[in-house]
Amino acid sequence: MALRGGLPTESGAVGVEGPRLVEEALRSASPVRAVLFSESGERHHARLAQYLDRREVSIPILRTTDRLFEGIADTEQPQGVAALVIPRSFSFDDISRSPSSTAAPLIVVLAGVQDPGNVGTILRTASAFGATAAVASPSGQSGTANPFAPKSLRASAGAALHLPLLTGMALPILLAQFRATGIQSLASSSRESAENDQPLFAPWEVDWCQPVALLIGNEGSGLPEEIERSADARIRIPMSSSVESLNAAAAAAVLFYEAARQRSSLA
Amino acid sequence: MALRGGLPTESGAVGVEGPRLVEEALRSASPVRAVLFSESGERHHARLAQYLDRREVSIPILRTTDRLFEGIADTEQPQGVAALVIPRSFSFDDISRSPSSTAAPLIVVLAGVQDPGNVGTILRTASAFGATAAVASPSGQSGTANPFAPKSLRASAGAALHLPLLTGMALPILLAQFRATGIQSLASSSRESAENDQPLFAPWEVDWCQPVALLIGNEGSGLPEEIERSADARIRIPMSSSVESLNAAAAAAVLFYEAARQRSSLA
Repeated sequence: MALRGGLPTESGAVGVEGPRLVEEALRSASPVRAVLFSESGERHHARLAQYLDRREVSIPILRTTDRLFEGIADTEQPQGVAALVIPRSFSFDDISRSPSSTAAPLIVVLAGVQDPGNVGTILRTASAFGATAAVASPSGQSGTANPFAPKSLRASAGAALHLPLLTGMALPILLAQFRATGIQSLASSSRESAENDQPLFAPWEVDWCQPVALLIGNEGSGLPEEIERSADARIRIPMSSSVESLNAAAAAAVLFYEAARQRSSLA
Repeated sequence: MALRGGLPTESGAVGVEGPRLVEEALRSASPVRAVLFSESGERHHARLAQYLDRREVSIPILRTTDRLFEGIADTEQPQGVAALVIPRSFSFDDISRSPSSTAAPLIVVLAGVQDPGNVGTILRTASAFGATAAVASPSGQSGTANPFAPKSLRASAGAALHLPLLTGMALPILLAQFRATGIQSLASSSRESAENDQPLFAPWEVDWCQPVALLIGNEGSGLPEEIERSADARIRIPMSSSVESLNAAAAAAVLFYEAARQRSSLA
């Protein structure tokens, strides 16, 4: 079992470290293949016992020395508890479905977000504001950081294990699928409007109560132009000066806040 | 002239480094005492010439070797241009005044924000969403990072030099002054509502078109309880789970976005 480095392993499993993430993994619907405690990590056993001691599950519990644990841990100050999790895989049908009869789909699409900390923070924020699913797609020159990489998982505080997450679908196909299923695709844009371009909407000019997918692009270059053009609408957060911009995580917080604000009036 | 480390110097001057910040300093109303170019920094002279070559100002221009510049620079990869600026000082009357006949004051109060990067980012975001002034106050156990420290200035992209900024006033006195001048004080809260407490409002339940001061507390502990109680209202960004919270900079972005959204309908 190697926790360090890129994930998932050949078996499709990812390692998660620390009592909070292990608890999130055990609470999620993702299968947990094993839980590992180091000697000093034993102190976290009580917190996790309610998930480990259920009759209907039998999760192998491994024990190791502190020294061995440090050798396989990804963090600098390992807390002595880790789990090996199989992230569930989701189809387009899974992520485009309404999770309940009252909430329309609200999907976050990571399209070229390269920093794993941003990927995790955006998933966490979107989830906390009521996102129903997520997509991680490569975009033009820039890939999206792996949502299950250690840094992404930590920044997501486990949201990557809870949100239905679709990976590996190319953006043009994704947009066509959204159109076919009646989901509005919204491109988060940092470009000034140009002639003959689609109009730019302020976040509050868009109806977030309908089924919506929000596309968030690369930290530096944003979304590829052709993707912005193929989306149903472009959104830009109005700021007093055109040179100003929010970082990717703060912009996502503002946009999902707007969705939550509009949806709260329906609840 | 020492750019490194805590600022301002005895003379009240602060050092700013790099072509972008030096340009912001020259564009601001703050007096610039000197501009320093290293040999390799000369290439930035053309960009700054329009500010340096005006007849009505005479700013001493100093030249130095690259090696000497590196010795006094605060950044790891100095860009060879720096300026010595005297931040203007502002009174309570200055910051509580409406800057125009159409816009009511919208004041950001940093109350115990300890990370200089957060201080700068919050000032930049608030300013881009239309904040009219700022206050940096110590709060309980925790001071607020100096808005003119090098890291704050860089993160603020110069907003700390443009926004009228009041420093050093204790929070209880500040709140009393806001009350006396008809400015609503809003406490950004991360606490769950407790019995007998003031109610918590969602950001959209508050009228941001009136004169408003938004108080933002420490990254870990938030605002002191007695300050939250003395404010006119407490605001909390609703999230699906009570354990979730936004980081200080993202929360500020959401709240100032809400102010801008409401005010835009008046414009």
